[in-house]
Amino acid sequence: MKVQYSLIVGLLLLLVHAAVGQSRYVLVIHGGAGTILKENITPQQEAAFRAALTDALLAGYSAIKTGKNSLDAVEAAIVLMEDNPLFNAGKGAVFTHEGKNELDAAIMWGPTRDAGAVAGVTTIRNPIRAARAVLERSEHVMLTGKGAEAFAASMGLQTADPSYFRTESRWQALQRALERDSLNSVLDHDGHKQSSAYPPYRDEKYGTVGAVALDEAGNLAAGTSTGGMTNKRFGRIGDAPIIGAGTYANEQVAVSCTGWGEFFIRSTAAYDVAAQMKYGRLPLAEAASNVIRKIGELGGDGGLIALDKDGNIAMPFNTSGMYRGAITESGEITIEIYR
Amino acid sequence: MKVQYSLIVGLLLLLVHAAVGQSRYVLVIHGGAGTILKENITPQQEAAFRAALTDALLAGYSAIKTGKNSLDAVEAAIVLMEDNPLFNAGKGAVFTHEGKNELDAAIMWGPTRDAGAVAGVTTIRNPIRAARAVLERSEHVMLTGKGAEAFAASMGLQTADPSYFRTESRWQALQRALERDSLNSVLDHDGHKQSSAYPPYRDEKYGTVGAVALDEAGNLAAGTSTGGMTNKRFGRIGDAPIIGAGTYANEQVAVSCTGWGEFFIRSTAAYDVAAQMKYGRLPLAEAASNVIRKIGELGGDGGLIALDKDGNIAMPFNTSGMYRGAITESGEITIEIYR
Repeated sequence: MKVQYSLIVGLLLLLVHAAVGQSRYVLVIHGGAGTILKENITPQQEAAFRAALTDALLAGYSAIKTGKNSLDAVEAAIVLMEDNPLFNAGKGAVFTHEGKNELDAAIMWGPTRDAGAVAGVTTIRNPIRAARAVLERSEHVMLTGKGAEAFAASMGLQTADPSYFRTESRWQALQRALERDSLNSVLDHDGHKQSSAYPPYRDEKYGTVGAVALDEAGNLAAGTSTGGMTNKRFGRIGDAPIIGAGTYANEQVAVSCTGWGEFFIRSTAAYDVAAQMKYGRLPLAEAASNVIRKIGELGGDGGLIALDKDGNIAMPFNTSGMYRGAITESGEITIEIYR
Repeated sequence: MKVQYSLIVGLLLLLVHAAVGQSRYVLVIHGGAGTILKENITPQQEAAFRAALTDALLAGYSAIKTGKNSLDAVEAAIVLMEDNPLFNAGKGAVFTHEGKNELDAAIMWGPTRDAGAVAGVTTIRNPIRAARAVLERSEHVMLTGKGAEAFAASMGLQTADPSYFRTESRWQALQRALERDSLNSVLDHDGHKQSSAYPPYRDEKYGTVGAVALDEAGNLAAGTSTGGMTNKRFGRIGDAPIIGAGTYANEQVAVSCTGWGEFFIRSTAAYDVAAQMKYGRLPLAEAASNVIRKIGELGGDGGLIALDKDGNIAMPFNTSGMYRGAITESGEITIEIYR
């Protein structure tokens, strides 16, 4: 009787193991959270986003399946999204108040918690590659502006003329924002508090891209790349290039965030997922959705993707949509856009 | 018998309460951790550091005792240390590779977790005031470079010619670092790995200042200000202006860090104190010393100051010294420098 019982338990465990093995995720990506409503997106646009997310997933998956590590997978997926003008990162980034494309990116390697980031760069074709060069080839974690560009150039990374990043639709978005800006300035003179002179533009502040990956050696990595928010001023830096805020990876979990960056910084959002798992012993899904819930309570919005060492994923967001996709060890792809 | 027992317990509790009340700390400051050895410091230098730390403590204490909030106390203490050329913040900041003083600062208000930071600024006399203006008068958290300077100017903050920050001793420190730099470059050509071309200079990378305060309404705040590390290049940003890394405050604890910034960023050090307390239910002292121990395990060094909502403090460090001081509710001052 006792032997039979053990046998049944053993068989059940095997079945569970097989089921878990099949659904183990190895790469998760996002293309930004925000006001993304089905009624505002044409079928052609939706198809283009789905194709772009699929390409990015396959690029990262191919890296993992050819024995490369999770940093390679994260970089490969993000480079494709940076090169695609659909996303607010690399080519297609939003414009600053002064009409420039200023790019931020970060990448982190879970096993050693080595990290690299660049912020406010204007001439590096793929900021995620520059972030990786900072991680692997400098003693620093975060480089900014012209200094970061000089570092990237000294490392032989591909540069780009600032005009390369320009897209007409982002330029028009800036013009709309500037128009509202001047309207707001008028309102200010009517007695609104001074800070409203620099309001965030809810519909145009999103569109970060990110990836988290788990390689065959069980190592996690996370990366994020963005153009920030339309009409940003004063050298504003959001959460994407800040380790612990928009990007984080350790031995247990990898996280990349997207949304209203200021709230993610104040919440140390990406690391907070890891901290709840480590100190609070919460499962991934609960830790991840707690972070987004708390950001909502602070008044912010956005989403995140997270992948733990067992291949579990979470993709919570409190906006109307988030471009997102995941691929399992066996190559099964999921792409979602709306709630 | 039972009544007598209760009476004794009650009296004991009263005594404990009185003792706790007397030793409740309201302000803690640091002037940097690093290779600080008694044999390398003259009695005159030590007296000057002690006087400067005492002045900073009294400035913050006076703010609290006149009913101002903990942000005011943090700002008042840090402004004095920024103005004092003894510390690597404001006047007396270290020089970058290019011979400039590039300053970083951050401040955070615990009750709402509002935060402000500036990085890479060269013309703002008191970067901590600029960080506070970002917190209170912008929609952003982190502003950098010329953009941050334009914001500070638009807020009417006092500017300074870059030459104001220059001190001869910091300039000489840069010359020594540059000399080693050229030696290192020669070594590199002999086959050392490329990253050693940009080595950190252990003895010259410290000297951040910071403060954490608890006001009479029970609200916590934290602030940090620094010139970064001597000979820093490529627009490097350390942990000081990064919320969660070098500076953090919530309703439970306020933290300011000093040390090898890259390790504090990778460890999300300041927030990690709060996370261990919140999710792991650890007391302040244990949470704070865990963070410094883990930074040591990663290969980094430095220290931090932390103050919780009950007025408990922790000041762990793994360097040979850390300039530090604390003041209690009743005005009792402690200043320490060495181990």
